[in-house]
Amino acid sequence: MSRSVLIALGGNAILQHKEKGTSEEQFENVRKTCEEMVRLVAEGYRIAITHGNGPQVGDILLKNEIAKNTLPAMPLDVCGAESQGMIGYMMQQSMYNELRKAGLNIPVATVLTQTLVRKDDPAFQSPTKPIGPFYTAMEASRLRVEKGWTVINDSGRGYRRVVPSPIPASITEGSVIKELFNQGTIVIACGGGGVPVLADENGALQGVEAVIDKDHGAALLATLISADILLILTDVEKVALNYGRPNQKDIDDMTTGEAKMYLAEGHFPGGSMGPKVESAIRFLEAGGERAIITSIGRALDALKGKAGTTIYR
Amino acid sequence: MSRSVLIALGGNAILQHKEKGTSEEQFENVRKTCEEMVRLVAEGYRIAITHGNGPQVGDILLKNEIAKNTLPAMPLDVCGAESQGMIGYMMQQSMYNELRKAGLNIPVATVLTQTLVRKDDPAFQSPTKPIGPFYTAMEASRLRVEKGWTVINDSGRGYRRVVPSPIPASITEGSVIKELFNQGTIVIACGGGGVPVLADENGALQGVEAVIDKDHGAALLATLISADILLILTDVEKVALNYGRPNQKDIDDMTTGEAKMYLAEGHFPGGSMGPKVESAIRFLEAGGERAIITSIGRALDALKGKAGTTIYR
Repeated sequence: MSRSVLIALGGNAILQHKEKGTSEEQFENVRKTCEEMVRLVAEGYRIAITHGNGPQVGDILLKNEIAKNTLPAMPLDVCGAESQGMIGYMMQQSMYNELRKAGLNIPVATVLTQTLVRKDDPAFQSPTKPIGPFYTAMEASRLRVEKGWTVINDSGRGYRRVVPSPIPASITEGSVIKELFNQGTIVIACGGGGVPVLADENGALQGVEAVIDKDHGAALLATLISADILLILTDVEKVALNYGRPNQKDIDDMTTGEAKMYLAEGHFPGGSMGPKVESAIRFLEAGGERAIITSIGRALDALKGKAGTTIYR
Repeated sequence: MSRSVLIALGGNAILQHKEKGTSEEQFENVRKTCEEMVRLVAEGYRIAITHGNGPQVGDILLKNEIAKNTLPAMPLDVCGAESQGMIGYMMQQSMYNELRKAGLNIPVATVLTQTLVRKDDPAFQSPTKPIGPFYTAMEASRLRVEKGWTVINDSGRGYRRVVPSPIPASITEGSVIKELFNQGTIVIACGGGGVPVLADENGALQGVEAVIDKDHGAALLATLISADILLILTDVEKVALNYGRPNQKDIDDMTTGEAKMYLAEGHFPGGSMGPKVESAIRFLEAGGERAIITSIGRALDALKGKAGTTIYR
């Protein structure tokens, strides 16, 4: 039986660090990424896709900021939904084209996704995730008062708003995504971790000014659709101990127990490898078969056990 | 057996003419619209939803224009996809909340939609649809040369870009939308008529700088999902002959033959009632049972034959 894989694409699948972010650049990166993903499909893997949205939602927020004297600025949840539309479009078009090129006739669709978070998530007490443009110290003071934002000095580069990054509790469109996936559609969903929403006492949803780590969203989505494998694609081929130091040691495979130990020892920094390893553990503890962290170019080899870092229960 | 209805929402379902376009205004309008649509669902109608995106994509284009010296401006197809994300999010959240309030447990999801148009559509020879910001005469000249745009003097209010408005040929995500609809999901799709794409000689899709009339998109979508009824909601209760003149005469019902005659007589202006009546005819000639044009508040009465204008084969 064909194995099912939830692919979590990092930002570099859509935009490289040195690029400006033109639509041509993004389309070309997405096209290359889709070419690699279609290789998996051609080998019989059933895939669903999720992706980050950091640079895209950042640009949308900044455009809103620059134009704010002319047009009402949209809040973060709406901007996140816009970025899902933008990236989903580029990706579903590119997947369609690359599948067709490979002679594969498989439907592709993006499902706009909301992700429920909990009001009592401790993240709401300590916002940590920088978003949007840089501000001057004076603007920062004004925004703290006027909008009630938390604005911090970001590594001396200027002042930046930080928002909470809560753990996703459930995916509102989960049943729809699962149904489509089970029927053989390549679903693109939960982009940027999904638009974070809170439920009020009556269960009514409302967007909340927060961001969800896309790898945490991916772990939840992979569990929800009962994927066999969570495949997290990033810009390194393997997870490493002592990363970037002379004694760096790449990891071929590890158990969730080992992964937890390395996490506790501080091998995997927050905001980069940390959430990826945590998400792998969460997926495996919820019943997943294996989680793989590798680069896009090594994805197929990694699925065959010949590359990347595989994490087992 | 329950009747199936494709609802085509006009711009006023999301934003009223006098409003600025804040997210609060849009959410509140969408909420009220969803409240009305849920009344239909509560009476047993199975619905799918499509919607216009004019003001939203206009604002996104203008934000891109204002910020263009800082950030790369996105082309029209990408902005259209963003607007589908924005409006789809507001609508699926509001539908979820209103359904829940009514005690109905029905999944809702937005499927990002591309609409295929034909290269040889005569619309590409004569762009007519104004989009985006106003320009000065000097900017207009520059844009004509630099970008190859068609820029016209828009009713003396300034210069504006016009793009082609081709007739939609097929909906790329059609099979997915139909599948979800048949399984009972309230699908929101084909927003703004769908992102227009052209296929090259190999069948590969690429976005094209054009806009699709949302009512034409709605007719195609309604046919595709085999809806019994196409329900076009706008800001008047009935279609009228001699609209706005002393001898105005509201129409309760008409056949497609009568509708064609009135169209030929010039009763329904292009850009407003014209495309709605044309779409109704196209839907009916493709096998639809009836098409209704009415206001949001009269939708349920119109389905029962007590309001609005009904068009039959």
